[in-house]
Formats: sequence, C-alpha cells, structure tokens
Amino acid sequence: MMERLYLYDTTLRDGQQTQGVQFSTPEKQRIAKMLDELGVDYIEGGWPGANPTDSAFFEDAPATRATLTAFGMTKRAGVSAENDDVLAAVLNARTPAVCLVGKTHDFHVSTALGISLEENLENISRSVAHLVAEGREALFDAEHFFDGWKADRDYALKCVHAALEAGARWVVLCDTNGGTLPVEIGRIVEDVIASGAPGDRLGIHTHNDTANAVAGSLAAVDAGVRQIQGTLNGLGERCGNANLITLIPTLLLKEPYASLYETGVAKEALVNLVPVSRMLDDILNRVPVKQAPYVGASAFAHKAGLHASAILKDPSTYEHIDPALVGNERIIPMSNQAGQSNLRRRLAETGLEVEKGDPALAEILRVVKEREDSGYTYDSAQASFELLARRVLDRLPAFFDIDRYRVSIERRRNAMGDIVTVSEAVVSTIIDGEKILSVSESLDEAGNDRGPVNALWKALAKDLGAYQGLIGDMRLVDFKVRITQGGTEAVTRVIIDSEDGEGHRWSTVGVSANIVDASFEALVDAVRWKLLHGQAARAAAE
Amino acid sequence: MMERLYLYDTTLRDGQQTQGVQFSTPEKQRIAKMLDELGVDYIEGGWPGANPTDSAFFEDAPATRATLTAFGMTKRAGVSAENDDVLAAVLNARTPAVCLVGKTHDFHVSTALGISLEENLENISRSVAHLVAEGREALFDAEHFFDGWKADRDYALKCVHAALEAGARWVVLCDTNGGTLPVEIGRIVEDVIASGAPGDRLGIHTHNDTANAVAGSLAAVDAGVRQIQGTLNGLGERCGNANLITLIPTLLLKEPYASLYETGVAKEALVNLVPVSRMLDDILNRVPVKQAPYVGASAFAHKAGLHASAILKDPSTYEHIDPALVGNERIIPMSNQAGQSNLRRRLAETGLEVEKGDPALAEILRVVKEREDSGYTYDSAQASFELLARRVLDRLPAFFDIDRYRVSIERRRNAMGDIVTVSEAVVSTIIDGEKILSVSESLDEAGNDRGPVNALWKALAKDLGAYQGLIGDMRLVDFKVRITQGGTEAVTRVIIDSEDGEGHRWSTVGVSANIVDASFEALVDAVRWKLLHGQAARAAAE
Repeated sequence: MMERLYLYDTTLRDGQQTQGVQFSTPEKQRIAKMLDELGVDYIEGGWPGANPTDSAFFEDAPATRATLTAFGMTKRAGVSAENDDVLAAVLNARTPAVCLVGKTHDFHVSTALGISLEENLENISRSVAHLVAEGREALFDAEHFFDGWKADRDYALKCVHAALEAGARWVVLCDTNGGTLPVEIGRIVEDVIASGAPGDRLGIHTHNDTANAVAGSLAAVDAGVRQIQGTLNGLGERCGNANLITLIPTLLLKEPYASLYETGVAKEALVNLVPVSRMLDDILNRVPVKQAPYVGASAFAHKAGLHASAILKDPSTYEHIDPALVGNERIIPMSNQAGQSNLRRRLAETGLEVEKGDPALAEILRVVKEREDSGYTYDSAQASFELLARRVLDRLPAFFDIDRYRVSIERRRNAMGDIVTVSEAVVSTIIDGEKILSVSESLDEAGNDRGPVNALWKALAKDLGAYQGLIGDMRLVDFKVRITQGGTEAVTRVIIDSEDGEGHRWSTVGVSANIVDASFEALVDAVRWKLLHGQAARAAAE
Repeated sequence: MMERLYLYDTTLRDGQQTQGVQFSTPEKQRIAKMLDELGVDYIEGGWPGANPTDSAFFEDAPATRATLTAFGMTKRAGVSAENDDVLAAVLNARTPAVCLVGKTHDFHVSTALGISLEENLENISRSVAHLVAEGREALFDAEHFFDGWKADRDYALKCVHAALEAGARWVVLCDTNGGTLPVEIGRIVEDVIASGAPGDRLGIHTHNDTANAVAGSLAAVDAGVRQIQGTLNGLGERCGNANLITLIPTLLLKEPYASLYETGVAKEALVNLVPVSRMLDDILNRVPVKQAPYVGASAFAHKAGLHASAILKDPSTYEHIDPALVGNERIIPMSNQAGQSNLRRRLAETGLEVEKGDPALAEILRVVKEREDSGYTYDSAQASFELLARRVLDRLPAFFDIDRYRVSIERRRNAMGDIVTVSEAVVSTIIDGEKILSVSESLDEAGNDRGPVNALWKALAKDLGAYQGLIGDMRLVDFKVRITQGGTEAVTRVIIDSEDGEGHRWSTVGVSANIVDASFEALVDAVRWKLLHGQAARAAAE
C-alpha cells in the first residue's frame, strides 16, 4: 500500500520573490493551468490584498483540479482574527484553502514582532481557528521553524501543536533562511513527529542557500512529512526554493520513493517536465539552464569520448534514467549516426525526404553546429531550420534578394515642444532582376511609434512584386530578444513568430551584434517561409 | 582535535566536460593559480596525452602548493603497466600525483571493456603498483562505484581493496552517472568502511543529476570519507560535478563540519569565493548565476517586504550567514512588494537620508509602482531607482539634457560586393545652455559593426563638455533585453550594466516600444549615475 505524498507549488508566491520576477495576471493564469495539468495538489496563487496582480489573479482564477490556495499571515496581536483587515483580505479571495505564515522562533517573536511568546501562540491558534470556522482548509507555514527549534525547542513545538490543535490540515516546517543542512532537517522532523505531530499533517519548505533544498526535502520525507512545498525551476527568494521540476522525477523514478509513495503526478505526465520548465523560462524570457537536472539541454549530453562510445553500446552505461521519461533528449556528438537519423526524421517532418547516407546530411549538421556556435538556435525556429536545410539541399527558390536597407530612428521635439520618436525604413529588394524600393515609417494608427523593426517590416511587406498576394494575410505575432553572450561583445538573437490568415504559425531566427539587423534577418526568413508554403499551396490548388 | 578533510579540484578535467567549455592552456594556468590561492589540496590538470591543451598545460605547469595531479585510466588488459602507452603518457607529465580511473561495476567490465572480472582487478592492482613504483602519489577513481556496489557488492569492494593493497593513497568512490541519492551514498560508504577500507583513504566524487551533488558529498563525509572531489561553479559533464564554491563555505561555516574538520582553505580566504567564482565565469564568458548559493548576486537579496523590514532590525533574521564572510553583499531591491521601511533603507544605502513619514516616500513608491506597471523593473536596476528617487526628492543635479538624437542603420553592398552593416548616431546634448553635437559610428577596432546602441553610446560619451573627465573610465559590460508584452504591441525593456575603472558596477533600465529608444534611455541613466557619483567622489576628495 503506497502512501500519498502531496505537492504544494508556490511558484506564484514565493517564486515571485525571485529578483527580477514579476508575473502579470495572465502569466499567473497560464502558469496555474500548467501546474494543474502537471498534477500538483496545491497551487498557492499569491497574497491577496498585498499585491494588486495577486488580487487580480484570484478575482479571475482559472478552475483547477488542484486546490487553489491564498497566502497570508497570522493575525496581528491586539485585534481579533475576525477584525484583522489583512486576514480579511486573504479570506476575501474565497479560495478553498488558505496558508498563513507565522512565527515559531522566539527571537523573531520578540525582535521582528515585538510581542510576547504567549501572544504569538494565541495569534496562531485564533487565526487557524478562524480559517476553519470560515470553512477553509487551513495550512500553517511555520516560519524559521528549524532555527527556532535549535534556539528554543519547546516553544517551536508549542507553535506547531497550537496550529494542529486549532485545526490546521497541514503544518509546514519552513527552513526560511535556507541554512539548515539535510541531516539536521531529518533529525528535527523526527523530533517533531516524536512530540505527537502526525507526519501526514506535516510539510517541508526549504530554500537552496547551501544547494541542499532538494536533499533537505527528501530528508524530511524520509523522516515522515507528507507534503513538499517547492517551485517550478527552483524560483524563489535569494537562491530559490526546492525545485519541483527536480523533485517530481526523483520521487516518481527513484527508489525508495517510487515504491513507497504516490503523488498527484502520473508517471506518464513526466514527459511534460521539459516543456513546462521551458515554458516558464519563456514567460520570464530567461535562457534555460543547460545543466538543470533532468530537464536541461545538457542533462543527457555525453561529451567525454569514452562515455559517448559506451552510450552507443548501451545508454544505461552513462545515464541514470532514460531521458525520454522526462521529455528530454540524449545529445551525442553531431558527427555520429544517431545525429543523422534524428536529422532525417526532422527533415521528413517538414516534407523533405533525404536518403540515408546522403552527404548533404553531414553538411546540414555542420552548418547547424557552426551557426549554433555563433548564437543561432533552431529548437524553436523551425521555419529558419527548414530554410537552412533547403539551401544546403538546393531546394529553395530564390524568390527575392535584399539589395539594401536603411532605417533611421529619431527622437526630437515636435512643433508643440513634445518629445517624439519616429523611425523610417527604406528597403530595396530585387525580384526577377527588377529593383523595388519601398519606404515606411513606424507610426501605428494611433500615431504611436512602434520602433525600427515595425518600420522595416512594413517597408518589406509593402511591395514584393509578383509575390505580394502571397503575404497579404501574414502578420507578426511575437518577437523575442535574447542576448546570447554577455558583455560588450553581446550578440543578439531575435526570434519572430508569424501567423497567416489560415492560422499557420511559424518561427524564424536572426543573429547579429546589431539588434535591428538580427530582427531584419528573422523578418526576411519569415517572409521566405511564407512564400515557400504559400506557393506550394497555390500549386497544389491549381 | 580536528580531522583533516582534503579538497580535490577537477575543474580542469571533469569541469572541461561541460558542454561548450574548452579551456586554453593560459586559461588553465590562470585557474590553477586561483585554485592554489584558494587553498585546495589537489589540482587535477587534465589527461596528458589525450588532449593537446592538457599536455601543454603540464609542460608549462605553474608551481603550486597544491599537489598537481594528472588523470588517466588503468592499463589495458594484455599489456603490462610498464608497456601501456596511454599510461606512459600520463606518467610523462611528471606530476607528483596521478589519478587513474578504472571500472568497479561488473556490467561495465563486461559491456564496455569486454574483459573478465579477474583481468580488471589485475589492471587496477598493476596500474596502481606501477604508479607507486614510479614514486608517485597514487589515486584510484572507482568509476560507477555506487551502481557497481548495488549490482555486485563483493566485486565492487574487491576493486576498492585491490587499489588500496597496491598502495593507492586514495580510493575515490565515484557516482559517475549521478543517480545515487545522498542517503544511499551514506549507507554504501559505511559498508565500504566496515569492509576494512579506512575512511581517511577514501574520497567521494558526485554529479548533480538529481541536484544532490553537494548533499551526496556531505553524506559521504558524514559516513567517513576524508576527500571530496568537485569543481568551481559546479562545472562538469551533463549537470555538473559537486560545486566546491558551495561546499567550501558549508564545510568551514556550518556545523557539524566547522567544528569537526579542518581543510586547506583558511576561513579568511572565503572572501575570495565571489571573485573566484566570477573570474571563472569571466574566463568562460558566462553570465554569473544570480541564484548561486553563497556567491550569487541574489544570494542575499531580500525582496519580500516583511523580510526586508526585519533585516533592518537584525540581518540574522533572514540570513543564514553574514554575506561579507564569502565576499558577497546584501541587496534590498526595490519592487512593488516592498514597503516604506525597505525604501528608507535602500535610500540610506545610496546616501539619501529621508525621515520616517516624509510624504516623498509615498510619492517615490507611487512612481515606482506606476513605472513597474508600464514595464520598468527596479529590482536589478538600482542606479535608475536612485535617479528616480533623487528626481522626486529634488536632489538630482541637471548635468545635461538631450536635445535630440538620430541613429541610422544601413545594410548594403560595399565596393567589394560584400554585404556590410553600419550604424551612425548623432546625439545633441545641452549642457549649461550650450548645444553640443556629437556623431559616431558603430564599427569596433576590427571593423565589425556593433549595432545602433553601440553607436549611440559612443556618440553620447564623445563629448559631455565639462563632465567629460568623469566618464572617461566608464564602459558598458552587459546588455539585457526583454519583451514585456508579447505580440505586435510589444514593449521592450533594456537593462544595461556599466562599470568604471574603480570596479564599481551599476545597472540602469529603459522601456519603450522602440528597442533603440529603450536602450538610449538606459544609457542616459547610466551616464547620469556616473556623473552623480563621480562628482560626489571628486567633491569628497577636494
């Protein structure tokens, strides 16, 4: 009989404490849906009343199978739980579960709150009891619990029991400062359970300040807790929280956990780990961490020659799990056969059948490798990959050439004395030996400047001669910019997503030290891809 | 009486197995010096004979206090240790210590090597004995030891004892595939010691495939090993090796390690951890990981409002160690989650004392909030925050005004028929009522186009009249771009990091639908901040 282990996600609350992270309400909704599909048990959505986007999220929260949870803090001393306005704002979010953080470390009670130890115990009891009376599932985040236990064990335990006795479904033992090592966490959790707190009402919340957040969570489970709090990609205050993207496959695939526990995440859902992790990076416009356990692009990359040759005989020689289980892929040096068969599959997906052993395959791999070294990426820019392959295979029609372009950006005061910015682009294309000169500026219908890339796009799309009819329904729907090398030698990668009237969507990439030039390259690829497929569709229809 | 714990660095060998990492010989020399100054006991320099830069490094190795170690593998079956050319190449590097990797997992002996278990034992014994006969300190890396122990405990132990009996100073238990969890590592190490292998001749080598490399190393030490192998910044094959930059402060500052063990690293040397970690990133041209334990820029950043206000009363409330011990700094970033106390503290740090209750505080928070809603972020752009606050407080000198600017980007064919891109910027500034017109283009010394932002920066920095002397040592070191709203209405946020000759580093932000205009705004802020602080420094010196 397997025991149930509960996963509590706090990406939207503690994860948002990451420096530089501030989710918009639609982003929070997207992340919540993603978490729900993955199978976590609780989704902590934020602190309603403390943060406008958190309040907005709860007002328009998605329907989830997971228990949506609002975060707040225990009532202040001197007011009743019923009359505490901060607590009232939390309850107003009308979530089925509410998690309140409170002090359990004597030093914090006196230093940070400046109240008596007794008053703090009462704040815990009354607040939790109030949640229960309001019909909510109550959780208590025991802040600084491990430091508190070390400073005054009896008081820390009293706080835990006060919350349990008041009806908390879960008391979550928090290593708020992240400094407690796994062995210590295990020992202290054992003591809490020995004091009479049932393990199946205890949770663990760790931080990664000594790189032990995952290990600390596992040690707490070993000692008896049955809820783990963490975040996607280990987002969180300072060095981050326990990374659920790492913990989930460890719990599902590794012993003793795989045999002892079941979670809300199905083993089949693990293939979503890579997409979920990447989607979050995408929302944050972060470069995915290559070395991330399980989901990183390097997690199953075998660079050492001895490893790579053994892998060919049997992948288990140098892999702790099959990468496919978590939606990841093995990477072995480009030159070998595995690389070529992957490539053939990918080409076939775009309708390009290439014979096994065709020397063009090695040439395509070489060009991809060379361009990836200089900052390109073809993982998401499938349309640019197709154009590259067709170029090597000599299966790309010429369509048009860019003779030259020029774009100017100007900021000045207008006649009214207001500061205005405007860009103007000139693009000269050559189609069937004929030169076409187009000009456009960057102002939208409302007269707002949309920048140089907008001006270039409008100029390029203005007149493509005989091809003009094929691009009439095309529009740019997304634009991503990433600096692929830091410092003054920064190289910019631009990815542009385009769409047409029939709902096709395609992505192209451009790379340059010049951000406008990188954008232009991606624009031109986007148009070429559209012409290629528009022409094919027209031919098929004729 | 404290026990000695030895640190073995393999940044130059296993660290170089990181995807995309290939050190040059001078880089290896620089890293070796850095490691030696830090105080590690062993520096593994590479595999002489297998890799040209490794051989070159040993030929011209720096003199180190640490024991320089060459890496190789046990002799092949069918030849004597004396006649094995691979082993001979390793010995030819003439290092005082040699570490040989060998099989200990029965499956690998038969699958990867295709020899008998007995032959493999003999390869281990003979190879180690040969090192000892040659007067070297011998180390044996027991590859796949933990998986081997689980598959055939007796055989794995036989391999360990064969190496010890042949005279190995250290047998290093390697979790080569990175899949063994800390608890298991601890239990297996205990068994090895119970079998008669002395803990002070055992080492641990872990990988981070489950994010447990540090925890696994600590578990092995708890169980009795006295050598830890790891790398700087956790470089290494796949997800990387155990991170010495994390392990070292944990061993020196955290109990029970701090009281039980001494290492070659002095407590005073810990202040070098941040510079060492950054220097390695610099060599690799990588952006430092903000969330890295101990040394990351966010490792002591307190974003939550409640945390920030407690930190003001006593930093130990939300810090597991004093950041100064490891050469790091506390950061209290601005964000809409922060309250007035956080704000006052942040202002005080920049030299702006504002009375509690001053209405300017609320006004600053209002402006910050408003600007964050339109895409700005002040978490990392502290310098722009300071300028914003000074503007509200009316404590920002005028310095200069931007009258107008214009930048043009052109791509065309030159006289040789090659495609060239060049940007040209004109900036008109007004200083003390006088207009100054500067022009610059985007080509660097090598004639490469660095783009419109580079051209604008050079034009802006070319002539600032009376202020020119203050910005002479300023340069742009990083440039980040984020699209804060998707789609065609995209708003671009640019963050620029600048540095001056005294090593100050500051970040500024600009936001616009026009990416060049956003960059220009961040540039202007960067210059204003430098003028402000340069002027203050000059005034103080006078």
